[in-house]
Amino acid sequence: MRIQLMKMLEERKEEMIQIRRYLHEHPELSFKEEKTAQYIVDFYKGKDVEIQTNIGNGYGIVVTIKGGKPGKTIALRADFDALPILEETDLPFKSETEGVMHACGHDGHTAYLLVLADCLIQLKDALPGTIKIIHQHAEEVPPGGAKSIVESGVLDDVENIFGIHLLPINPAGYVGYHSGYSFAGRSFFKLEIQGTGGHGSSPHLANDSIVAGAHFVTAIQTVVSRRLNPFDMGVITIGSFDGKGTFNVIKDKVVLEGDIRYMTPEVQKIIESEVHRIAKGVEVEFGVQCELSYTSDYPPLYNDPEMTELVKESLEKANEPEIQHVSEYPMMSPSDDFAYYLTKISGCYFYIGCTPKGVEKPYFNHHPKFDIDEDALIVAAKSVGTIVCSYYGLE
Amino acid sequence: MRIQLMKMLEERKEEMIQIRRYLHEHPELSFKEEKTAQYIVDFYKGKDVEIQTNIGNGYGIVVTIKGGKPGKTIALRADFDALPILEETDLPFKSETEGVMHACGHDGHTAYLLVLADCLIQLKDALPGTIKIIHQHAEEVPPGGAKSIVESGVLDDVENIFGIHLLPINPAGYVGYHSGYSFAGRSFFKLEIQGTGGHGSSPHLANDSIVAGAHFVTAIQTVVSRRLNPFDMGVITIGSFDGKGTFNVIKDKVVLEGDIRYMTPEVQKIIESEVHRIAKGVEVEFGVQCELSYTSDYPPLYNDPEMTELVKESLEKANEPEIQHVSEYPMMSPSDDFAYYLTKISGCYFYIGCTPKGVEKPYFNHHPKFDIDEDALIVAAKSVGTIVCSYYGLE
Amino acid sequence: MRIQLMKMLEERKEEMIQIRRYLHEHPELSFKEEKTAQYIVDFYKGKDVEIQTNIGNGYGIVVTIKGGKPGKTIALRADFDALPILEETDLPFKSETEGVMHACGHDGHTAYLLVLADCLIQLKDALPGTIKIIHQHAEEVPPGGAKSIVESGVLDDVENIFGIHLLPINPAGYVGYHSGYSFAGRSFFKLEIQGTGGHGSSPHLANDSIVAGAHFVTAIQTVVSRRLNPFDMGVITIGSFDGKGTFNVIKDKVVLEGDIRYMTPEVQKIIESEVHRIAKGVEVEFGVQCELSYTSDYPPLYNDPEMTELVKESLEKANEPEIQHVSEYPMMSPSDDFAYYLTKISGCYFYIGCTPKGVEKPYFNHHPKFDIDEDALIVAAKSVGTIVCSYYGLE
Amino acid sequence: MRIQLMKMLEERKEEMIQIRRYLHEHPELSFKEEKTAQYIVDFYKGKDVEIQTNIGNGYGIVVTIKGGKPGKTIALRADFDALPILEETDLPFKSETEGVMHACGHDGHTAYLLVLADCLIQLKDALPGTIKIIHQHAEEVPPGGAKSIVESGVLDDVENIFGIHLLPINPAGYVGYHSGYSFAGRSFFKLEIQGTGGHGSSPHLANDSIVAGAHFVTAIQTVVSRRLNPFDMGVITIGSFDGKGTFNVIKDKVVLEGDIRYMTPEVQKIIESEVHRIAKGVEVEFGVQCELSYTSDYPPLYNDPEMTELVKESLEKANEPEIQHVSEYPMMSPSDDFAYYLTKISGCYFYIGCTPKGVEKPYFNHHPKFDIDEDALIVAAKSVGTIVCSYYGLE
Repeated sequence: MRIQLMKMLEERKEEMIQIRRYLHEHPELSFKEEKTAQYIVDFYKGKDVEIQTNIGNGYGIVVTIKGGKPGKTIALRADFDALPILEETDLPFKSETEGVMHACGHDGHTAYLLVLADCLIQLKDALPGTIKIIHQHAEEVPPGGAKSIVESGVLDDVENIFGIHLLPINPAGYVGYHSGYSFAGRSFFKLEIQGTGGHGSSPHLANDSIVAGAHFVTAIQTVVSRRLNPFDMGVITIGSFDGKGTFNVIKDKVVLEGDIRYMTPEVQKIIESEVHRIAKGVEVEFGVQCELSYTSDYPPLYNDPEMTELVKESLEKANEPEIQHVSEYPMMSPSDDFAYYLTKISGCYFYIGCTPKGVEKPYFNHHPKFDIDEDALIVAAKSVGTIVCSYYGLE
Repeated sequence: MRIQLMKMLEERKEEMIQIRRYLHEHPELSFKEEKTAQYIVDFYKGKDVEIQTNIGNGYGIVVTIKGGKPGKTIALRADFDALPILEETDLPFKSETEGVMHACGHDGHTAYLLVLADCLIQLKDALPGTIKIIHQHAEEVPPGGAKSIVESGVLDDVENIFGIHLLPINPAGYVGYHSGYSFAGRSFFKLEIQGTGGHGSSPHLANDSIVAGAHFVTAIQTVVSRRLNPFDMGVITIGSFDGKGTFNVIKDKVVLEGDIRYMTPEVQKIIESEVHRIAKGVEVEFGVQCELSYTSDYPPLYNDPEMTELVKESLEKANEPEIQHVSEYPMMSPSDDFAYYLTKISGCYFYIGCTPKGVEKPYFNHHPKFDIDEDALIVAAKSVGTIVCSYYGLE
Repeated sequence: MRIQLMKMLEERKEEMIQIRRYLHEHPELSFKEEKTAQYIVDFYKGKDVEIQTNIGNGYGIVVTIKGGKPGKTIALRADFDALPILEETDLPFKSETEGVMHACGHDGHTAYLLVLADCLIQLKDALPGTIKIIHQHAEEVPPGGAKSIVESGVLDDVENIFGIHLLPINPAGYVGYHSGYSFAGRSFFKLEIQGTGGHGSSPHLANDSIVAGAHFVTAIQTVVSRRLNPFDMGVITIGSFDGKGTFNVIKDKVVLEGDIRYMTPEVQKIIESEVHRIAKGVEVEFGVQCELSYTSDYPPLYNDPEMTELVKESLEKANEPEIQHVSEYPMMSPSDDFAYYLTKISGCYFYIGCTPKGVEKPYFNHHPKFDIDEDALIVAAKSVGTIVCSYYGLE
Repeated sequence: MRIQLMKMLEERKEEMIQIRRYLHEHPELSFKEEKTAQYIVDFYKGKDVEIQTNIGNGYGIVVTIKGGKPGKTIALRADFDALPILEETDLPFKSETEGVMHACGHDGHTAYLLVLADCLIQLKDALPGTIKIIHQHAEEVPPGGAKSIVESGVLDDVENIFGIHLLPINPAGYVGYHSGYSFAGRSFFKLEIQGTGGHGSSPHLANDSIVAGAHFVTAIQTVVSRRLNPFDMGVITIGSFDGKGTFNVIKDKVVLEGDIRYMTPEVQKIIESEVHRIAKGVEVEFGVQCELSYTSDYPPLYNDPEMTELVKESLEKANEPEIQHVSEYPMMSPSDDFAYYLTKISGCYFYIGCTPKGVEKPYFNHHPKFDIDEDALIVAAKSVGTIVCSYYGLE
């Protein structure tokens, strides 16, 4: 079946590109992807599958391909939301919606998966199991769509899950994987420090919130430098210190906002606890009131070693001309809500190179000039197709 | 002559009040006091004095009263600008210009001095010297009017100078003085700390200006705590820490603004030098660029001990019913550009109580509900008149 | 009586010098002044006075001179302990006890007061009141002798008290006074910060007490810079940061010791409260244990304005050739347990110039080369004698 | 040849144990291993090898085993110095030298390698190449022996190098490896901050070195928290803050000592540069003098991936009953001067489990109760023997 599938994908390479271009031209923001969802539903119309729509907290879609034989259920996921970015490319299929852009490759994710799903539908009689195709909304905006899809229960019977992300750190033809924790988890916090305002010449009658805020910034550095295992990854960035005021008036209140990254839930727990501790300490030390809201956003993305080994091995021996390099990638600091699926279902999320041909320093995901080499779509399709076949032992 | 002068002032007490009310109703902002200046010039029209207008950097007026006999030249000063404050009183003569208010008592200063000047003009044949009446513009806004009036040269022949400020810390009838440094000097600074922006997850590719700014705030505390003589007064307030940004973006630049107070020029020099030193230190320590602009505003106000003794003694033995209490006041943290006159001409700036009758907790100068007891005007007029007589030995 | 007293003192000037030299040669440390006390008691033997010994927590002596007429009771105090300093002068009457020295002038204080007391005993029939002569032990070492003498009750009937200190900031002939708070109060504290030791490469398994200690030092600066009225005097010095360890072992514990100065009990209260607050804050912030012991030592010395005026006026009109200059001195940062008397009994502690003749830069009190101009003894005796006479209205 | 070698080693298992016990009983400190070196030299006496002694900066020994056939040259290394630790075990062969102990397993390293070397000498006719046995002195004390042995030139012809370390994190039978950077590099520094002493009550006349030192400690935290790539390992510990003084004297000087760990030379460079930068910044900021000495000690230990693969593969297929588990270990924070060999010669340094039988929580290297399971010696010998055979293609 694998050989047949690969051939079918090759024949529909151009179709993937056209779908990707259509989506690129018609991007929609997270949680507002009404037309994109409709486009996807229309694609499946008349095909012998079950389609569930409005899954989770938005326009999530789950397409169930029941194989001709009994067997395990797996899921394949592609996200379809775009970003609030004003596109700066000169592509003929540039975004038609000003200020919204598919700058993260989700157009390509959806394009390859639609075609791959269609091919699998056609071959499903030979399939010893069930494949659930997840077209996911709202990956870009916390709390994201993944968590709610998991919570909806539609994946309760899924045993393993796979997904890919287009990353222009290598050209088309490169596939990367990382076993274990791979993408960072992310939290953020907001700290309001309330002191007492007053005249600049009379500090004793006031309580200077800027001084307290500065001590918080200084003290928080010790979490990364002294509280974490030096072999663990952890970052705390205070990205905003809102203390604008008048030079001769003691500032009554400052608001700090911070961003936190980590590769394991254990590190997240330590950091969360320490941020609370230091906020409390500053409160005592300076007699101010600290109001802290701390939100754990996407968790660290954990690729199951066994599933990652399956990805690696099946691709290494695939012998497809489009899949030229299969190699280990390092851990990376971005976050993706695919991580939520992996907290419930073991699986592997891996990377498809897509640096545009002839470009040495490509624009990265989220840049207004981000673009991909569309040859990466067939690489994605063949890779995931190959993994599915390997999974089910279909040669 | 003194008895005659006192009697004349008593007779014109109501006129002072009317002038004050007119001015209160028609306030003008610093450097924009065109009509107020014209009102003052009109007052002197037809009187036997020399009037100089547009003195210094604005609408400054100097009226020269030449006495009938030769002698020393002294100056008396009243300021006449108002503040950008929306008046919140219910006075029948409330400001007619929305958002501008005589909330610092300059209406009263001008009112009493106009009447006193007129009386002195009438008595000038007996005067063994010359009196220069300074109607000063723009006290409220640095660089103020005083400095430019001094620099204009019109006061080069003045040997001593006197002035008063209405302060509602005591009722009408109280007069306060302080020998030596009395009002604080003031400086301010703006510090731009330029780092390098970047993504919150990659601090090593950026240079966090918020962290550098926080260290500056922390380090600057040591100037007051460790660099100043503990018996000296000094304050450094960072009133603004403008570092608002996005929580997950490392802030490329913060702007800090600070206010500085001191009672002696020596302390000002130490603080200025240390602020520069610490900005330079932070630059080296964190690899950021610090652009510091530091401006010395009004100097500390120094009352000449001999002139202050003259004020004290002449008022203590004045035996005027309106002048009931003459006492020493402590040093105070406000600033006044009368200090500039005193850096060139020895003199005394003292305080006239004006708490409205029946009020326990008066609104202070610069408050939208600031008001005075108008009985303070005759206290001011008689006090300054008495001092002039004492100065010239006129009983 | 005053004229007679002055004459008697003049005649015994040499005796004062001899007593001072004897005491200088035989210094004894605080709380160990057994022989000095005996010397003093011997001096009074056979005189018509009541002598009380072992007053308070040491060798304190109170000599009561009952006047021939009824009247108020006052006290005069001189301290008699020496310092643990190795004398470096070449005086012929240099200390015979190695490592102990009268380097603070207490030998002179005692010498003049013995002679003055003897004169007053001789004149006591004319005295309308009672004079208690306090020969005080242990001024140099907290808790000092003064507090315990006050607490013993022997001064319960005393209405006013006077004392002098020899200060070489002016030559003999100068007398200085300061009304209100004059000498600083002093506190000290010891802070033990207990973290958890560990290997330098594994900060997450330890809790670094040096980092917590450094934050305490940094935070404590804000007490002086932000919590005190800028017109108030306050100092906090961390004089000891005991964190010596091994470079590659995380330090489990540091011990900090600090010294605190202030001119009013209010400032003392603020600082004490803030030191406790910041220690508590550091405890919370860094998860360490802070053990803080804070001791309020001598209070600020407060000279009663009325008594100070009496000192000033009586000396200004004394017309004694030895008392040439009477002037106001500024507040000073040393401490003296005379302050304890003044918390219960209104009085005045003032200064007698004693710079050795021909010396431009004298060695100050507590220096191993400290010395005085012995002409200062007659100045002290005549000054205090004059004040006593003025107090009782004896011309 | 491999089967023969394995058999020979099995037969001499007890001899290894006896050698290890003899060495354990007679430990010598780094750079003072005279008798140990003699013991080793004696062992080789009469054998057909070249022995070079006193190599490098101490008692280093290199034994050259020339094979019967031409081929590559490799080196095997064992260290033989002991530690200044008072042994607390109850072993019958406990250290006879009080205060000196083989607490790091070097006795075992040397024991297995002597026996293995002897076997290889016996089999050398079949060997297609040359093996240099390095008996290294002074691993425990920087600058260590390895660096000087490399610099001596005796290894110039060596193409690859192998070595093992006994680690009680697993029982005998476990072998661990890590490719790439494996053991941390280490630096240390000493910073003298010279301010100006003075009386605690007069901070303006002094320059407080404790305040400057505290700011250094606080600022240095930002190197790890903000300057390093969050995926890189780096630690800076200030293990000593020597600022003990008197509470009321402003401290003129503090001395700080720090320990630094990292897994790559790039991180070492960043940290070194930043420590210098911050010391310079503190100098400017606080007007103190900073004298900084910074020493880069052992570099990070880098295992060549190809050689590590050789170790892994040859051991995995060795099929020896003593080698039961071959697995990847994480990076670790200790340092070893084997790292110096690896900066010049590609090779692999790996770990031999040695937790004593029946012990759940073993004492680690450098503990006074450290002990090993002596079965680990045959594991070490067979492992290294197997690798040598694989290297030369000898089955």
